[in-house]
Amino acid sequence: MSQARSADWMAFVPLGAVGEGSSARIRGRSGATLVVSRGPCVRASSRRRCGVPLRMQVDGMEVQIERSDELCVMVNGVPGPMATEVARAVLRRKLPLVPFALTGPSVAQHEASIDGSSEVKLVKPDAARSVLKQIKAARPNVVCVDYTHPSSANANASLYAECGVCYVMGTTGGDADAMRREVADKAGMFAVVAPNMAKQIVAFQAAMKIMAEQFPGAFEGYTLTVVESHQSTKADTSGTAKAVVASFKQLGLDFDVDQIEKVRDPEQSISRMRVPADAVSSGHAFHTYHLSSPDGSVHFEFQHNVAGRRVYAEGTVDAVQFLDRQRGSGSASQTVFDMIDVLRSGSMKS
Amino acid sequence: MSQARSADWMAFVPLGAVGEGSSARIRGRSGATLVVSRGPCVRASSRRRCGVPLRMQVDGMEVQIERSDELCVMVNGVPGPMATEVARAVLRRKLPLVPFALTGPSVAQHEASIDGSSEVKLVKPDAARSVLKQIKAARPNVVCVDYTHPSSANANASLYAECGVCYVMGTTGGDADAMRREVADKAGMFAVVAPNMAKQIVAFQAAMKIMAEQFPGAFEGYTLTVVESHQSTKADTSGTAKAVVASFKQLGLDFDVDQIEKVRDPEQSISRMRVPADAVSSGHAFHTYHLSSPDGSVHFEFQHNVAGRRVYAEGTVDAVQFLDRQRGSGSASQTVFDMIDVLRSGSMKS
Repeated sequence: MSQARSADWMAFVPLGAVGEGSSARIRGRSGATLVVSRGPCVRASSRRRCGVPLRMQVDGMEVQIERSDELCVMVNGVPGPMATEVARAVLRRKLPLVPFALTGPSVAQHEASIDGSSEVKLVKPDAARSVLKQIKAARPNVVCVDYTHPSSANANASLYAECGVCYVMGTTGGDADAMRREVADKAGMFAVVAPNMAKQIVAFQAAMKIMAEQFPGAFEGYTLTVVESHQSTKADTSGTAKAVVASFKQLGLDFDVDQIEKVRDPEQSISRMRVPADAVSSGHAFHTYHLSSPDGSVHFEFQHNVAGRRVYAEGTVDAVQFLDRQRGSGSASQTVFDMIDVLRSGSMKS
Repeated sequence: MSQARSADWMAFVPLGAVGEGSSARIRGRSGATLVVSRGPCVRASSRRRCGVPLRMQVDGMEVQIERSDELCVMVNGVPGPMATEVARAVLRRKLPLVPFALTGPSVAQHEASIDGSSEVKLVKPDAARSVLKQIKAARPNVVCVDYTHPSSANANASLYAECGVCYVMGTTGGDADAMRREVADKAGMFAVVAPNMAKQIVAFQAAMKIMAEQFPGAFEGYTLTVVESHQSTKADTSGTAKAVVASFKQLGLDFDVDQIEKVRDPEQSISRMRVPADAVSSGHAFHTYHLSSPDGSVHFEFQHNVAGRRVYAEGTVDAVQFLDRQRGSGSASQTVFDMIDVLRSGSMKS
C-alpha cells in the first residue's frame, strides 16, 4: 500500500487493484465503472496522516481511503455545467478534488471527466449517505460544494449537516432558513449559503448598497436607465439588476424594476451590449446602469459584464477556502455565511 | 420704510433712495454703483423679524438692513466663474442671496450681474471686515461661500471666524487645519471645508473607498486601465482619479497613478471620451475606469463625466443648507465638516 500512502486519492480504489501504473478502470457490481487516474486531483501532501487506511464499500466495491486532515473538495452536481466549472476551478487552485460527486437520479452516466484528466464517479441519491459518511470518516476536513437542483438543495443540506460536512450551497431555490437552522444546531458545522458566488459582482452590489445607506438621496433628481443582456433562455429580469436598482432608489432615483430593459436577442446582445459571440447563447450577464443629472451636465455609468461561468466557480472556491479558515479559527459565533462575509475576510487571506 | 420691511434685501439701499418702484441704481462716494432690484434674490419671508432696521455705512453710503433670522447666502469670489455659478444655484434654490460679495483687490468692476437679474456689489478687501460685521449683525444666520483665491482662503476664513459667520470653503490651496482650529475655537461656528463639492462624485469616490476597506483584495489578479479628460489648461492628473485608484489598489489591483492616461487634446476629448464640444475648453472632468479579470471573462467599467461647473455649485448650496440645519440642531460635537458629512445627512433632509 505504499502507493496509496503517497498519493491520497489513489486510495479510492479496490484493494490491490492498481499496480504501479498511472491509472486503473474498475467495474463494480452495479455495472458502474470507476476510473482512477493520477491527474491534477492527485496530491501527495497532507497536514496530518493517521497511517491506517479506512476500508469502505462504494458501489459494491471494497475501497480504501487514505486518512488525512487535509482540506479536500467534493463538488456535487457534476456533470452539470456549473458543478463541472467549479471542479475545474478546484483543480486550477491545486486543491484535492474528491473523485466522487452526488448527482441526480435521472443522470444516465456513471462518471464524468473534468478537463479530460480527472475522472469523477457519480453517486446516485440512494448511495449518497453511505458514500458521504465514509468520505467524512476518512477526510474530516472535506468541504462539499452543491450545484445540484432546487428540488434537492435542502435534502443535500440536511445530509451534509447529518454527516457534519461543511458546505457551500450554490444551488438556488431551496429553503435557506432551514439550512441555517440545521447548521446552527450542529456543533463544528459551517456553511456558505449564497445566491450569487461571483465575488466581484457581489462586492459591487454591496458597494452600491452601502453608498445608498450612507448617502440617501445623493442622486435626487437624476434619471436612471438600466439595460441587461442574458442568454435568451433566461426569461426573468436579472436579480442583480433588481438589487442594484433598489439601492439607486434609496439614492433618490425615481425608478421601477419594470423599467429595466431586458436584451434577449442574440444579435442585439452582440451589437448593442458587445457580448462576445461565444457567450451569447452559452451564458452571459451584462449590465449597464446610466445616471444623468437633471440638466444633463453630469453622467455616471456603471457596467458589470460576465461571460461564461468561471467567475462564479472561482468565487465558490474562495468560499470553500474561507470555510476551511473559518473552522480552523475556533470561533463559532457565526456558522452560516454569505459572499459578503467571504469578501470581508479578504484581508485575512494567507 | 414699509417697503424695506416687506422685501428683505430692498433694505440694502440708502435711506429713502428707493420709492415704490421695483429697482434703483445708486452711485456711492467711491464711484461704485449699487443696483438694487426685485429679482429672484428678493424674498419676503423670514423666520423672525426684529422690526427695527439696522443702519450701516457701505462704500460711503448709508444703508439699512432689515433684521431677520432667515438663512441667507453671501457668495464671495464673484465675479469669478465658480462663485458666479454658486450664486446662480442659490437663486435657483430660491434662497436669499446677499447682494454683496467679497472680491479680490485686482478686480476692476464694482458690481456683477447674476443671470442678468440680480446685481451683486463687489466689496474690496479693505472694506470686507466692516461689511461682513454689519451683515452678520442684521442677518445672524448668513452663511458665506468662499470661491476666491488660494492666497486669500485663510484670511477670509479668519474673518468669517472673527465675525462668527458659518462658511463653506470651496477655495482650495489654503491651510485647512488652520481653518478647523479657528472654527473649533469659536462657539456657535460651523463650517464645511472640502476640496470637491460635487456631491455625487464624492459619493462615488466614498463608495469605492468603503468597498476597498471592507473587501480588500476582492479584485486580485484583475487589470485596470484609467483614462481621464480635462480642459487642456489642467496640467496635473485628476485628484479624483488618484483617490479612486488608491481604493482600487486596496481591492487588489496592481496599478500606479503614473499609469492614469491624461487626455488634454480637445479633438481626442470629443472623439474618444465623448465630451460635449462646448465643455471641451470651458471645463470638464471625464473619468473612465476599466477592470478586467485575468481570463478576460469579466469586465467592470465605471464612468463619471462632468461638463461645466453646475454640479459643484449645487453641492455647495447643499453644504450651505446642511450648515443651516447643523447650527439649528444645537449639537456642537463636530463643527467642521466635509462633503461626506453633507452626504450622510441626506436622510435628515426636510
